[in-house]
Amino acid sequence: MARLTIALAQINTVVGDLEGNSQRILAEARRAQQAQADAVVFPEMTLTGYPVEDLALRSSFAAASQTELERLAVRLSEAGQGELPVVVGFLEPGTGRPRNALAVLWQGVVRLVSAKHHLPNYGVFDEHRYFVPGDVFPVVTIGGVDVAFAICEDLWQDGGPVAAVRQAGAGLLVVLNGSPYERDKDDVRLELCRRRAREAGAALAYVNLVGGQDELVFDGDSLVVDATGEVMARAAQFTEELLVCDLELPSAATASPPPQREIAADGITIQRDALSATVRTGAESPAGAARHAARLTDPAEIYAALVAGTRDYVRKNGFPSVLLGLSGGIDSALTATIAADALGSEAVHAVLMPSRYSSGHSVSDAEDLVKRQGIHGRTVPVAGLVQAYEGELDLDGLAAENLQARVRGVVVMSLSNQEGHLVLAPGNKSELATGYSTLYGDSVGGYAPIKDIWKTQVWELARWRNAEAERHGETPPIPENSIVKEPSAELRPDQRDTDSLPDYAVLDALLDDYVGTDLGRGELVAAGHDAQLVDRVIRMVDRAEYKRRQYPPGPKVSRRNFGRDRRLPITNRWSFGVGLPPLCRRGPCIPEYSGMHGHTSLRWGEGSRTDDQVLFCAHDRKILHILRGLCNRCL
Amino acid sequence: MARLTIALAQINTVVGDLEGNSQRILAEARRAQQAQADAVVFPEMTLTGYPVEDLALRSSFAAASQTELERLAVRLSEAGQGELPVVVGFLEPGTGRPRNALAVLWQGVVRLVSAKHHLPNYGVFDEHRYFVPGDVFPVVTIGGVDVAFAICEDLWQDGGPVAAVRQAGAGLLVVLNGSPYERDKDDVRLELCRRRAREAGAALAYVNLVGGQDELVFDGDSLVVDATGEVMARAAQFTEELLVCDLELPSAATASPPPQREIAADGITIQRDALSATVRTGAESPAGAARHAARLTDPAEIYAALVAGTRDYVRKNGFPSVLLGLSGGIDSALTATIAADALGSEAVHAVLMPSRYSSGHSVSDAEDLVKRQGIHGRTVPVAGLVQAYEGELDLDGLAAENLQARVRGVVVMSLSNQEGHLVLAPGNKSELATGYSTLYGDSVGGYAPIKDIWKTQVWELARWRNAEAERHGETPPIPENSIVKEPSAELRPDQRDTDSLPDYAVLDALLDDYVGTDLGRGELVAAGHDAQLVDRVIRMVDRAEYKRRQYPPGPKVSRRNFGRDRRLPITNRWSFGVGLPPLCRRGPCIPEYSGMHGHTSLRWGEGSRTDDQVLFCAHDRKILHILRGLCNRCL
Repeated sequence: MARLTIALAQINTVVGDLEGNSQRILAEARRAQQAQADAVVFPEMTLTGYPVEDLALRSSFAAASQTELERLAVRLSEAGQGELPVVVGFLEPGTGRPRNALAVLWQGVVRLVSAKHHLPNYGVFDEHRYFVPGDVFPVVTIGGVDVAFAICEDLWQDGGPVAAVRQAGAGLLVVLNGSPYERDKDDVRLELCRRRAREAGAALAYVNLVGGQDELVFDGDSLVVDATGEVMARAAQFTEELLVCDLELPSAATASPPPQREIAADGITIQRDALSATVRTGAESPAGAARHAARLTDPAEIYAALVAGTRDYVRKNGFPSVLLGLSGGIDSALTATIAADALGSEAVHAVLMPSRYSSGHSVSDAEDLVKRQGIHGRTVPVAGLVQAYEGELDLDGLAAENLQARVRGVVVMSLSNQEGHLVLAPGNKSELATGYSTLYGDSVGGYAPIKDIWKTQVWELARWRNAEAERHGETPPIPENSIVKEPSAELRPDQRDTDSLPDYAVLDALLDDYVGTDLGRGELVAAGHDAQLVDRVIRMVDRAEYKRRQYPPGPKVSRRNFGRDRRLPITNRWSFGVGLPPLCRRGPCIPEYSGMHGHTSLRWGEGSRTDDQVLFCAHDRKILHILRGLCNRCL
Repeated sequence: MARLTIALAQINTVVGDLEGNSQRILAEARRAQQAQADAVVFPEMTLTGYPVEDLALRSSFAAASQTELERLAVRLSEAGQGELPVVVGFLEPGTGRPRNALAVLWQGVVRLVSAKHHLPNYGVFDEHRYFVPGDVFPVVTIGGVDVAFAICEDLWQDGGPVAAVRQAGAGLLVVLNGSPYERDKDDVRLELCRRRAREAGAALAYVNLVGGQDELVFDGDSLVVDATGEVMARAAQFTEELLVCDLELPSAATASPPPQREIAADGITIQRDALSATVRTGAESPAGAARHAARLTDPAEIYAALVAGTRDYVRKNGFPSVLLGLSGGIDSALTATIAADALGSEAVHAVLMPSRYSSGHSVSDAEDLVKRQGIHGRTVPVAGLVQAYEGELDLDGLAAENLQARVRGVVVMSLSNQEGHLVLAPGNKSELATGYSTLYGDSVGGYAPIKDIWKTQVWELARWRNAEAERHGETPPIPENSIVKEPSAELRPDQRDTDSLPDYAVLDALLDDYVGTDLGRGELVAAGHDAQLVDRVIRMVDRAEYKRRQYPPGPKVSRRNFGRDRRLPITNRWSFGVGLPPLCRRGPCIPEYSGMHGHTSLRWGEGSRTDDQVLFCAHDRKILHILRGLCNRCL
């Protein structure tokens, strides 16, 4: 047996920032050496950031990645870390497409390179588009132990390099990852690491990225398990950390084999090398106390992901501050709280925009939040602005309601342009799913912190955040009234969300099944959802696709978010397949919702238009065109 | 030799519309039978429409596709087309992912099914995400001729089913396609068909979809070449057509082999079957006159693609009409003309929104266009609306300019909501590339007909369209003054596009190299572009990514459009790699553009902020924060 100290550098890289990422690597390598590590390992695509998307297809970028890698090897050596094996991820140029590769840097040179074998091409991943798969499995003797290396998806798929660990006789498998956060994924990952370790008969070290990149948030959660699957060390979630772990591992068969290649099962080439020949035994160096970072609870974890995603989008894109409209409602209240937690109260600017339909509590609740959190607040009344438009245009129904939201959108964007804040959009996932928002109105913004959070989760997170504050003896940041009051868009007198939408608990459960797992109509009904509601909600979701396409990005925390995870056509008649005539998405234009919006009764098919998308309103004898699932009054 | 009459049904399917697509197939099968065809072939994924994107992953959708296929076989038989082999594309359910398949329908049943072997996963295609590849190559004896079938990408890739044609001894290879239009792609396709026919020693029939599906436009252009590569028949571009072609082909080795399988090279299974045993010889049936549709010129082809994309987006999504703002400039003029050609003048609504900076010719040119085309026109002055905001907010510089554009956006969206029109966004590709537009201002809309057209092409198409009108003795639809006048956003006094952008001829050439072919900085300079301009333009393009993400869809006509064809991160520091400090995207904040916008001189790095994104303005001693590539005045 030999004693190996492995350092896992869970860092927050920036896509495209080769020089900045090199600096981060140099700093952590120095810390790892100070901690007397035998090797330090960084996450997937460390040098380039991850994912780089179509940057991967630019030969100039791949070439720069290679150049930066070689320069980094020299700089590490010059900085005194030449004898420390440093393992980083990078983009390796090829004759055609590049590879998603790892490199072992040692003694001022790139000692060994190998690439990811399994390329994920599902969910948010498009790696068949970018990379050619690797075929080499590196096993490197470090400090007298055979250490094998693989990249992310290689761990998740059966077969490939991980299956060759046992044959290669490695004592430790190290996996470089860029694994985005999803609710409950940390438990899945831990179980996977344990299982793979047992299958391989080797300890396993898992190092993951941390921080936000557009819609993805990497949660870190790096960990080490021994060959029986027992957790030896585990890093924190959502924060940078250098996890240093002492391991007792089987000694390599040969202390220092020459560089050589052999063919393993599945046609994988095992490439052997030996570095850092200093071998320690347990007796020489007492093990340090193992690090076991506390796990976050479910709401804490989700909230941390939203904060990290927001913080990194704002900071990595160079914005000094954010701006958002505060309505007194729960969505903008939670969004403001996330922003203040991410950036500090000083960097959060709120604008209150009361209209003629705003209730007294809207303004007082928003003012209360500004005061509780110490963020910047100001008021810009919009009633006069709305009136100015009403003088030029003859609007009623939803057109009039949307106008108010759009006037607010213009105010927010104007202040953003004038003062340089990034605008945050406060929409939640239930709104995004059903299209219950105004395009270019409440949907304006550069980032949308809660777009992957169902409305019921919004309340849950708000309650959790307030309880956390109380637990720490702080003022709860969110006014209780914003949490408990009935939700309303306040775009017409006495409006309630439930005028147009079912109860959120019912709606969210159905949406989660439809959006999250792609159940069809029959399966949704079989799962216990009301059949009429299923028909109505499927249509609402499918017809709001065009709105979602123009929505700003926001952090993914669910198994499937609205974004690259879910790619549906806008032009799509499939939802019509449920066998009902097209209906108005707002609900009032079909008989069961009669009486709302002044349409008392509608009969199907009495219009005379040639397309199949006309309803006839018996109330005021008008033809209603159904456009994108909304009649021409409700659109 | 035997005489075979093949019918290629170049139809316009609708994604998700299983019943409607079946109706289209039934109608064309009837026509094919009337034309005495021995078989009729439809494009890729005929039943489901193409591409279905993530609908492919819904088991309920794949099951419905299978059910509809079986039902279609019965309906064909009931309609009297039971003896006609009908070959359609469909989504075939699998145990895991489905297949992109074709089926031969005959005598009321699904006689044979095989799936696409090569799955494209580049450009706009993500087929590794959706499908498992096929492994069977069908060769069916029809009318005494061995006919082989393949799907789209199978034709483009070396190896696979096409390579097995010669071994299978087929006299005709029929390829079902969903091949989107790109400028010059028709010539590439023709050459490919010729080459593959010669390689296979077989005639080749190529049937393609026609019509628009979100950002894609399918151009039809179905064709037949003989075994020497000579064109036997060619259908029109961008219109539905049943192309019927008589061919003299080698007789099958066995007139009627039993269904059987054999293994060819590359491990492909050749599956043989025999249908429709009636064998004709040339002497029995004189060949009809071969159809050779005239080719469109380059501008005619591009214009037809824009018209088809716009028409189908509007119609397939059920909109009765469109609305757009008319500025008197060339972009909105061309957009209106495309809309009128796509939908008829009656369906086009224009709104003129003069502001205090609008010149006299802006209004008169827009009015002239309304009159020339007979579209609906109205005027909503925005000066008063802008003033109302200015009373509430203290705006100057670009914030004030953007305000006007956003007020217009609100007017256009309000009219759309009130009256049910789809809004068209008039932005061109040069604007999209450089971010020279106002988010939620001139960029609002549901579809953007010219978003893949460089500004220089906008002028070219406008001139071409007017010349076409003159050639046909019609009034040129676009006022000459809209074409010849200097482009201006008219958001401040005497503004010109060239205040902020280089000459469009220079800019577009550079943009086309950067966006279209991913050349890096060094390559762009080597290609003859000015180095300083390259640095500036790369940054402008990279930093406008967030705006493009929120832009409406529009028809792709170039090799690479802004859309699924080009997937870049928003958070991306790579453009900083060119080694210069961040600069303001509008240009005025770096010394070589001094004097504009009142910033006479700027020095880099004199600001004291901790991030690297600060410029110091020597003119008015203010710190300028560079946000998304714009200083805080120009943002």
